[in-house]
Amino acid sequence: MKKTIRGFPSTMGDGYQLNLIQIIKYAATMFPKREVASRNLDGSMFRYNYLEAYKRISKLANALQDLGVKPGDRVGVMEINSHRFFELYFAISGIGAALLQLNPRISKDDRTYVINHSGTRFIFLNELFLPLIEELSGSIPKVEGFVIISENQKNKETSLSPVFNYEKILDGKSDTFNWPMIDESSAYSGAYTSGTTGRPKGIYYSHRAICLHTMIITMLSEVTPEDAMLQIVPMFHANGWGAFFGPPLTGAKLVFPGLYSAENPGPLVDLLIKEKITVTNGAPAIFLPMLHYIEKLDPKPKFHNLRMISGATEPPLSLMKKYAELGAEVIHAYGASETTPLVTVNKPKPYLELNEEEKWELKKKQGFFVPFIDWKLIDPSGNKIPMDGKSVGELYLKGPWITYKYYNDERTKHAISEDGYWKSGDAATVDENGYLKITDRFKDLIKSGGEWISSIDLENSIMAHPEVLEASVVGIPHPKWEERPLALVVLKDPTKEITEKDILDFISPKFAKWQLPDRVLFVESIPKTSVGKFSKKDIRKMYWDFYTKNA
Amino acid sequence: MKKTIRGFPSTMGDGYQLNLIQIIKYAATMFPKREVASRNLDGSMFRYNYLEAYKRISKLANALQDLGVKPGDRVGVMEINSHRFFELYFAISGIGAALLQLNPRISKDDRTYVINHSGTRFIFLNELFLPLIEELSGSIPKVEGFVIISENQKNKETSLSPVFNYEKILDGKSDTFNWPMIDESSAYSGAYTSGTTGRPKGIYYSHRAICLHTMIITMLSEVTPEDAMLQIVPMFHANGWGAFFGPPLTGAKLVFPGLYSAENPGPLVDLLIKEKITVTNGAPAIFLPMLHYIEKLDPKPKFHNLRMISGATEPPLSLMKKYAELGAEVIHAYGASETTPLVTVNKPKPYLELNEEEKWELKKKQGFFVPFIDWKLIDPSGNKIPMDGKSVGELYLKGPWITYKYYNDERTKHAISEDGYWKSGDAATVDENGYLKITDRFKDLIKSGGEWISSIDLENSIMAHPEVLEASVVGIPHPKWEERPLALVVLKDPTKEITEKDILDFISPKFAKWQLPDRVLFVESIPKTSVGKFSKKDIRKMYWDFYTKNA
Repeated sequence: MKKTIRGFPSTMGDGYQLNLIQIIKYAATMFPKREVASRNLDGSMFRYNYLEAYKRISKLANALQDLGVKPGDRVGVMEINSHRFFELYFAISGIGAALLQLNPRISKDDRTYVINHSGTRFIFLNELFLPLIEELSGSIPKVEGFVIISENQKNKETSLSPVFNYEKILDGKSDTFNWPMIDESSAYSGAYTSGTTGRPKGIYYSHRAICLHTMIITMLSEVTPEDAMLQIVPMFHANGWGAFFGPPLTGAKLVFPGLYSAENPGPLVDLLIKEKITVTNGAPAIFLPMLHYIEKLDPKPKFHNLRMISGATEPPLSLMKKYAELGAEVIHAYGASETTPLVTVNKPKPYLELNEEEKWELKKKQGFFVPFIDWKLIDPSGNKIPMDGKSVGELYLKGPWITYKYYNDERTKHAISEDGYWKSGDAATVDENGYLKITDRFKDLIKSGGEWISSIDLENSIMAHPEVLEASVVGIPHPKWEERPLALVVLKDPTKEITEKDILDFISPKFAKWQLPDRVLFVESIPKTSVGKFSKKDIRKMYWDFYTKNA
Repeated sequence: MKKTIRGFPSTMGDGYQLNLIQIIKYAATMFPKREVASRNLDGSMFRYNYLEAYKRISKLANALQDLGVKPGDRVGVMEINSHRFFELYFAISGIGAALLQLNPRISKDDRTYVINHSGTRFIFLNELFLPLIEELSGSIPKVEGFVIISENQKNKETSLSPVFNYEKILDGKSDTFNWPMIDESSAYSGAYTSGTTGRPKGIYYSHRAICLHTMIITMLSEVTPEDAMLQIVPMFHANGWGAFFGPPLTGAKLVFPGLYSAENPGPLVDLLIKEKITVTNGAPAIFLPMLHYIEKLDPKPKFHNLRMISGATEPPLSLMKKYAELGAEVIHAYGASETTPLVTVNKPKPYLELNEEEKWELKKKQGFFVPFIDWKLIDPSGNKIPMDGKSVGELYLKGPWITYKYYNDERTKHAISEDGYWKSGDAATVDENGYLKITDRFKDLIKSGGEWISSIDLENSIMAHPEVLEASVVGIPHPKWEERPLALVVLKDPTKEITEKDILDFISPKFAKWQLPDRVLFVESIPKTSVGKFSKKDIRKMYWDFYTKNA
C-alpha cells in the first residue's frame, strides 16, 4: 500500500460509511412500487416490489439474529438466481455478516474445502442442491445449521440437521430492523475462485467495493428507471457481477430467471420478451444457445434498446451481428472474481468517427477501463508497456474493488506484485484510446517453433463458421515444434457433412499457414469449467499425447 | 456520528483512496483525444483535449510546488468559468492542498473575512477581478503571493505583490508529476456560504465527497461519451455543482463559457448551438434570459436531447414547456453549498404511468433523492414526518457529501442536529414516490392571520403570466394580519399597459382570496443575492413599513 498523506481536514461526511443495505433501503423509499419478479420452478412468476422486498429483508435480518448469526460471521448460500438470493445478499450483509457464495458446480472436495476454510457457520441452500451438501455430512463440522430454500414452508426430507425452512423462519417476524452502521472495509460477501491448480482461493468483497462498483457499473451500463434487467449471470459467481444491485439503485425493474440452463434456453428468451427486458448480462456460452433458440422462432422477436453485457470470453462477431439485427446490442466487458468484477466495458466513443467495419472490430475488444482502477501492462522483465495496441504484457490491477490478497492463503505472494497489484495472468494489449484486448491467457498461448500462436484468434475464426456451435483450440505437445494447435469443434447439426478441410479452408485466409491447427476434431461437447468457460486444462489432459502418437 | 461496527475483514482495496486527480488522469488515458473548449474574452475558442489538459495540470502542480504550496494549504481562486479554473481544481487538490472558491460577488468585508478565516496562502485571480483583491491591500496579511490569470504571459499593472503570471509559471515546467495518494477525508476544496445573517460560513469538501458525488451526478444525468456539456453554473459556487467533473469521468466533451452574464445571454445560446451541447446546468435566472434571446432568433434553433439541469429555484412551468418545444428538457435539481450540492434530481419514473398534466406537475417538484443520502423531514416538535406529499417539515440531511460542521465556527451548533444531520432550513414535503417539494424557506413563509401562505406558489403563478419577466413575493409586516404578501413584478416590456388587477385576476383562480398579495408593484428589477436568487432579505428591508404606511 502506497503511503497516504493527509491534507486539510474536510467538514464532510463525518465518517458516514457506504453500506450495501443503503441500496435496498433507498429503493424501498424512492421506488417503493417498482416491480421485482422471479421465475418459480413451475415457470409461473412471483412478483413483488422494492418496498415489499425490503420488508422481507428486514424480517430475514431478524430471523438471522434469532438463528444466532453475529457480525463477522460467514453464512454460506447455495441458491438459484431468485428473489430469495437477492434478499439474502442484503440481510446477511446488513447485520454485519458476510454472504459466502457457494458454487454448486465445483467438486465435492472443493466444496468441503471452501466451507471449512471460510469458517461458515450456517448454510442456506435451495432444496435442489440438498444432495450436494448432504454428501458432505461429517466433513463440515463448523456448520451449526442449515436453512432450506423452497417455495413454501415445507421442507423436503433431509439428513441435514439442525434444519430450518426459509419461508418459515420469516413467518411472523417484524418487518423493521435497526441496521447497524458497518465499517465499509468489512466483508459484505465472499467467494472462492476455482484456480487452475490446487484448492479454490478465498476472496472477500468489502461494502465499500460493492457500493462503488454498483455506482460504476450502473453509470456505464446507463441503467435508468425506464429499464428492466434480467439477471442471467449466476449470483454465486463474482457477485453475479454485482449487476442486480444496479436496478434498486436506479429504480429499474429487476427480473430473476430462477433455474435455467444453456441446454434449455427457451425460458430465458421468453423472459426477455414477456418482461420487456432492456438490459441483461451473461456470456457467449448462454447468449449463443439463446440466439439459436430465437432463430427458430417465427415470427422473430424484435428487441428495443436491449443491451446484453457479455463476459467470460470474446463474443464472436457473428453473434454480435445477429443480435444487432434483432435490435439487441452485445457489449463486451472484462473482469474476474478478484475484481468484483468490472474492469473494462466496451462502450463506443462516437467522437472517434470510425467506419462500420472499424466499429465491429473495436467491439470485439474487452473495452476501455472503468474509472478508479489503477492498471498497467508488464512485460516479462517487469517493465511497463506502452498503449500502442501492439505490445503484449500481463495485465496488473489495483483499486478499491480489486483483491490485494487471498484470505489466509500462501498463494497471495505469487498473485500480488510487490507494489500491491493483482496479477491477472492475462496477456493483453491496450490501444491509444484505452481499449483493452486480451490476446490470451499466458498459459493458453501456443508456443510453436519459437513463435506464439493465439488460441483465442483461432477459436473465434472457427466459431464464425455458420455450422459451428462452439470451438476450442489448445496447444498440444509436439515432437518437432514443441507445441501445435489442436481444434475441437461442436457442430450445430452433427448429421451435416462438414469436413476438417471445410473448417481449415474457412479460416485460412486470416492466418499464416504455420498458425493453422494441425488437426480439427469434431466432438459432441467440449469440457467446461464451473463458470462455463472452456476448460483448456481438461482438454489438454485428454489430448496430451495426441500429436506424439499421430505426428 | 453513529457508532460503526466491524465485520469480517475484506481482501479488497488495501486502503486505496478516492482522489480527485484520478478523474483527469483517467480522462487523459481513456479519452485522450476528447475535446475540451473554453471561450476566450474576445469570443474566440481555445481548444485542447484531456491529454493536453492533464499535461498542463501536471505542469501547474510542479509550478505550485515551486511557489511553495504544501499539502494542507489553502489556495484561493477567483476566476471565470474557464479551462484554467478546471486545471486549478485538479492541480491544487492533486498535490494535497485545498482550492478555496472565491466568489467575486460578495462584499469587500466578506471577501476579507473569507480569505483571512480560511488562512489562504496564495491567491489565483483573473485579471478582471484585480480591483476586488487590490482593495483588500493591507487587510489580508496571511496571503504570501498572487498569480494573475490572463490569456497570455503578460500581466496587467497591479499593486499586488509578490505577483506571478499563470501562463508564465507553467512555461518550461515538466509535464509529468508524481501525485501523492491523499487520505480521502482530506479537503480537496473549500467554499464559504453567504448566510442570511452574519459572516459567511466555511465548508471544506473532501476528496471522498467529490468523487462519490461525481459518480452519482454522472449516473443520474446519464452523461456518456456521446455528450457535450456546457458548464454554466459558476465554478466558484458549490463546486460548480461538481458538474464539470462528469465529462472527464465519462469521455464527454466539455465546454467552458468564459465570461458571461444574464444581461447578455447571446454567447451562451451560441455555444449551445455551435458546440452541439447536449447537457448543461444553471438556474431560471439564466435559462429565462437565454429563452428570451432564443425566442427572437429566426429560424429558432432545434436542440437534440439537450438536458438543462436547473437549480436554485423551482423552474416555472412556462419556461419548461417552451424549452420542451425547442427540443430541450429542463430537469429540476436541489441542493446547497453544504451538500456538494446534489440532493435530489427530478427524473421521470415512466412506470408511474402519469398523464401529461400530472407529468408537468411532477416536473415542478425538486425531484427524488439521490442514493447514499440519509434524510428526514422534521416537524417543529422534532418528530419525523411521513412521506404523504402533504405534511410539511424541515429537511434534515446526512451523508458522505453532506456538511456535518462549519469550519472553525460556533454557528455549527445551531446548524447541525444532535444526531449529526445538517438542517437545511427548507420547509418541504416528500410524496409516496420519494419526490421532494420545497414549499418554502421557513423564514419565507408568510404568516397571515394564523395561516401560512407560500410565497413560492404565488411567485410561480405570477411568472406564468406571458408579460411577466420575473416576480418575487415577500411577507411584509401588517398592522392587522401580522404579515401580508407583497408582489414585485418586472415586465418583459415595461411600456405595455399591464395593471395590478390584470396580475391578480390572472392568478386568482388558483388561490383563496386571503392568499392573494394585497399589492402588486411594478419595478425595474428585483434585488438578487450573489448566486442569483431573489434576495428576500433585501426586498423585505426595502418595503418593511409599506403596509404599515399604506394599510
